[in-house]
Amino acid sequence: MKTTLDCIPCFIRQALDTARMVMTDQSDHERIVRDVLHWAVGIDLDQSPPRMAQRIHRHLRQLTGNQDPYRAAKDYQNRMALTLLPNMRAKMADSPDSLLTAVRLAIAGNIIDMGVHSKLTAAQLQASIQQALSDELVGYSEFLRRVMDNARRILYLTDNAGEIVFDRLLIEVLGPERVTVAVRGAPVINDATSVDAHAVKLDEIVAVTDNGSDAPGTLLDDCSAGFKRQFTASDLILAKGQGNFETLSDVRAPVVFLFQAKCPVIASHARVPQGSHVLKWFYPETFNRVNGSGL
Amino acid sequence: MKTTLDCIPCFIRQALDTARMVMTDQSDHERIVRDVLHWAVGIDLDQSPPRMAQRIHRHLRQLTGNQDPYRAAKDYQNRMALTLLPNMRAKMADSPDSLLTAVRLAIAGNIIDMGVHSKLTAAQLQASIQQALSDELVGYSEFLRRVMDNARRILYLTDNAGEIVFDRLLIEVLGPERVTVAVRGAPVINDATSVDAHAVKLDEIVAVTDNGSDAPGTLLDDCSAGFKRQFTASDLILAKGQGNFETLSDVRAPVVFLFQAKCPVIASHARVPQGSHVLKWFYPETFNRVNGSGL
Repeated sequence: MKTTLDCIPCFIRQALDTARMVMTDQSDHERIVRDVLHWAVGIDLDQSPPRMAQRIHRHLRQLTGNQDPYRAAKDYQNRMALTLLPNMRAKMADSPDSLLTAVRLAIAGNIIDMGVHSKLTAAQLQASIQQALSDELVGYSEFLRRVMDNARRILYLTDNAGEIVFDRLLIEVLGPERVTVAVRGAPVINDATSVDAHAVKLDEIVAVTDNGSDAPGTLLDDCSAGFKRQFTASDLILAKGQGNFETLSDVRAPVVFLFQAKCPVIASHARVPQGSHVLKWFYPETFNRVNGSGL
Repeated sequence: MKTTLDCIPCFIRQALDTARMVMTDQSDHERIVRDVLHWAVGIDLDQSPPRMAQRIHRHLRQLTGNQDPYRAAKDYQNRMALTLLPNMRAKMADSPDSLLTAVRLAIAGNIIDMGVHSKLTAAQLQASIQQALSDELVGYSEFLRRVMDNARRILYLTDNAGEIVFDRLLIEVLGPERVTVAVRGAPVINDATSVDAHAVKLDEIVAVTDNGSDAPGTLLDDCSAGFKRQFTASDLILAKGQGNFETLSDVRAPVVFLFQAKCPVIASHARVPQGSHVLKWFYPETFNRVNGSGL
């Protein structure tokens, strides 16, 4: 999807948040905001928001001289999510439908998004879990269950640090042996990288690869050749979060998007109410590869 | 108070809202946003936010060729507020303390702020009234009651269209004979002008003047000489809304601010929680002029 004019104030706010996170001097924050404003004057709206965000955050890293401004935030988010893991496992054990519960929890974890909520507390995260377990889940169906049951090679595209702890539960239910997890190739916002996969020990249960890109989404033309081969060879791609939705919603591939529609622009693009917990897929013919899932 | 970096994304969003309100062509919206971004690169943060907003909205009116982009919105807000007037009068009649209830209602009306909430419904407005009548009112005191009781010349600085219907009730309780109401000198956002004072018949019960300025606040150096004389001659100035607070909080004068602290920057400047309904005053010595109010 393309960048909208509504995305621009959000980019400026993100730049300011990042500046404040890594520099204490008000004049540095001001310099960065003016610089991003200057850059935004010439913004190319035909590109997707994550491509714009990629450029802004590259630029911010250059300006700040900090290659991973959100490192401390990500560490905090990983730790916070890990403390909730026993509680989530208990919910899974109590559930008569572990796949559905795992899907709900994976989407609950998508609240950990510093592009949208720059200060998330453990209480808000717990509230998000409760809500995800009780709210309507838009788009879940027996067809998707069959697709998930029957896929042989699943590529799981993660989104944020912390959130990957929630993803772990779904990967366990799917069966890690048929799953490859992909994280971002380099730090951008609080998106999970291989450092995070290692920090929450995801790499101990499943194959973890990185996509070779520093975009907060999956820009295929920016990803490594190895990742692209994996993408093409998979018969099911589970893509977490808004950034993956923004970058892959036009790609003809067997992708199921799992996300919270936090921003009004994305909710509108997905044709769901803002705030919805969503499973979304396009291109039914691409799922024919999944053995036995036939539409 | 000065403009903060947090104000900038908000200015961009306001510019986009205004563009969409008055022009249908997406390329015009884009042109305006790029233009305001360009302008924002060189923004002078030593000025108050309403001075910045004044410049942006002047510029928007010039770009759009529409001298009163919010006219239809203001008409709607006036009508919506007038439909609630009987209900508010009933609440006043039931109240054992009509001054306090009128103050609460006047602050309730301050929710009608297109700089903050661009799409307010009648249901949200009614909810705001209920909340204003039950929530804590920060800063109200017997001292302020005495100040309001004893003032001889009250200048009442309005904020938004629609909101002035709520102000009318407070002006009636204060006694219109000692009150002069000041509206903005020219359209800016949905701030009330003499057109609105006339539309809700405020001018039938009280003297209405305009301040000669098109800023969404009270920039004294931009106001007419007549307004400034009135300002200096008043022994109590009741100033509604965030814009008046932003522009007058540093002015040594007997001003009591009545507003909802809708934005985090203003809440922080007023040292109240965001969302508070607030009466705020500074410079106690300036109230000595009010006969009998002595601190």
